[in-house]
Amino acid sequence: MPDQQTRQWILSNPPSADPVLEGPNSTFSLETTSLPTPSTNQALVKTLYLSNDPAQRGWIQKDMDPERLYTAPVKKGEVMRSYAIAEIIESNIEGLAKGQLVMGSIGWTEYALVNKGEVRPVQADASSGIRPTHFIGALGGPGLTAYYGLVDVVRATAPDTVVVSGAAGATGSMVVQIAKHIVGCKKVIGIAGGEKKCRWVESLGADVCVDYKSSSFKDELKKATDGFVEIYFDNVGGEILDLMLSRIKRHGRIAACGAVATYNSMGETGVKNWFEIITNRIEVRGFIVTDAIESGKAGPWVGELIKGVKEGKIRVGEETETLVKTRFEDVPRTWRMLFEGGNMGKLVTVLEG
Amino acid sequence: MPDQQTRQWILSNPPSADPVLEGPNSTFSLETTSLPTPSTNQALVKTLYLSNDPAQRGWIQKDMDPERLYTAPVKKGEVMRSYAIAEIIESNIEGLAKGQLVMGSIGWTEYALVNKGEVRPVQADASSGIRPTHFIGALGGPGLTAYYGLVDVVRATAPDTVVVSGAAGATGSMVVQIAKHIVGCKKVIGIAGGEKKCRWVESLGADVCVDYKSSSFKDELKKATDGFVEIYFDNVGGEILDLMLSRIKRHGRIAACGAVATYNSMGETGVKNWFEIITNRIEVRGFIVTDAIESGKAGPWVGELIKGVKEGKIRVGEETETLVKTRFEDVPRTWRMLFEGGNMGKLVTVLEG
Repeated sequence: MPDQQTRQWILSNPPSADPVLEGPNSTFSLETTSLPTPSTNQALVKTLYLSNDPAQRGWIQKDMDPERLYTAPVKKGEVMRSYAIAEIIESNIEGLAKGQLVMGSIGWTEYALVNKGEVRPVQADASSGIRPTHFIGALGGPGLTAYYGLVDVVRATAPDTVVVSGAAGATGSMVVQIAKHIVGCKKVIGIAGGEKKCRWVESLGADVCVDYKSSSFKDELKKATDGFVEIYFDNVGGEILDLMLSRIKRHGRIAACGAVATYNSMGETGVKNWFEIITNRIEVRGFIVTDAIESGKAGPWVGELIKGVKEGKIRVGEETETLVKTRFEDVPRTWRMLFEGGNMGKLVTVLEG
Repeated sequence: MPDQQTRQWILSNPPSADPVLEGPNSTFSLETTSLPTPSTNQALVKTLYLSNDPAQRGWIQKDMDPERLYTAPVKKGEVMRSYAIAEIIESNIEGLAKGQLVMGSIGWTEYALVNKGEVRPVQADASSGIRPTHFIGALGGPGLTAYYGLVDVVRATAPDTVVVSGAAGATGSMVVQIAKHIVGCKKVIGIAGGEKKCRWVESLGADVCVDYKSSSFKDELKKATDGFVEIYFDNVGGEILDLMLSRIKRHGRIAACGAVATYNSMGETGVKNWFEIITNRIEVRGFIVTDAIESGKAGPWVGELIKGVKEGKIRVGEETETLVKTRFEDVPRTWRMLFEGGNMGKLVTVLEG
């Protein structure tokens, strides 16, 4: 078999603000390379789906102190890192056969050589409506992040009222469902952008979803959180976090999961209501799902989620994903939709061709 | 006995920024009133010492939502609230005799009528060097705040390295001493303003104290916290908090005690490094000492601190207080020294006359 030609997106200019998709300062550049024939314990894979995650923005931030990141940054000149689902084209890895689907940190590349242990098989189950892409969404990192943050980090229980921002996102939509249908929280309030997303979040189980793009957002949030709330699951940071700091009950908890609103403007916007943490004795806990995965804690949670799906408590149909058919040259453009609020549920790039 | 004339400082204009001490927009105004003869279960007291606490700034903030304060705000037209030590002049309260010293929330007033239960006797012990003012300082609110935050809220233990800001303040200076001499922490790093304060903080037991007024502050803090630290006891908020967010070890803890740097500019400066909380899984806990006092938890801690004093572990000499002799008309001026970094240890107003 001849060397495999592949296009790859390379990190060419680590951004300090909004990623740039065109021109000489482009954050990424498209290059073509060829991959050698896989050697022992290697496989050649073809990428089918790319996982788009807000965390990726952190991995490429310019001049970040690598000691302060939870994972190594992507270096200038390297292939942009991304979880993905791929198909085995040629395998010298025992247990992985041609045609099988695998997932792992494969990157923005059409084809890749992977080593043993770097990918694992994807077990879809069409009869339960569990599709391959759910393992990078509802039943993968985002679903586990939701479970970890809500159940373990801030210890949600049935008497709690929970607010979740980014409620229409991959993680947020799972927080809503887990809070309502697994933990059985008293009240679940979503925050999302736009009427359509809000109604969708309510269809997942939120008692109410407040539209942050509405001119009456502040009043509506205040009304929805009347009497204050025990738990805030924060996916967005920035202004919504500031507002929520004043809506948390005394001795309430914040699961600090993400800050997507600030990832492109780090150091610009600041949290102004910090004193609320003091006066209202709020507990804030940052967390990263890999801790729960590496410690083995997350193992049973996958089963819990799959059980939820089979019992009809957790919806993982097509509607919990936004699948975007994308030509390889448009991969960065689809990824950027994350920061434009363009997706409902998990944003998945479906590579064409 | 005729009615007692007294001067009082009244909250006349709740401030939204720096308190104003002169002119038509003065935050406080000096008024004279007369107090009736104490009735049953009342006593007339003369104020000797005023406790100056950063928290007082929060109580007078303009347009604060009272539901979000840990204590009722001082209303416009009311006497400015303050802890104080006073002498009984005339008593109809059983157990309180003329000449006895008492403490309580007496306010900025020369004389006051107090009801039964509103004040409690102050038990000084000259032989151990424990003076009345220590019960509003090292052995009172600030000392208990230090103990509560460090030992209970962020659970400091001997292997921990602790950084404390406002280390020369009433609470901070006790955090340093408790961390080093009671908990036995591995390393204690103070942050304070100016050479003199820093050397003093080191004399209390800090391994090093970094001067935030120094032009090389950032580098010195970085050096002092090399390898990162487990615990940050935050008394100041603002920029120092932001810096410290990047110096806390993965899974480290922050005791959110105060934000004196921001009390006069609420909503202006924001915490910019919030994402550090996420990526480094930092736990932040706000706390207010009254919780520990009201729950009875703090009871044994006072004994622990007094034991520390008697064993020579905790220093409460004159040097742990800044006693400022003050004419009654200058009470707000002395109080404002809190925000100018003017005090070492507890700032106590000693009323003249």
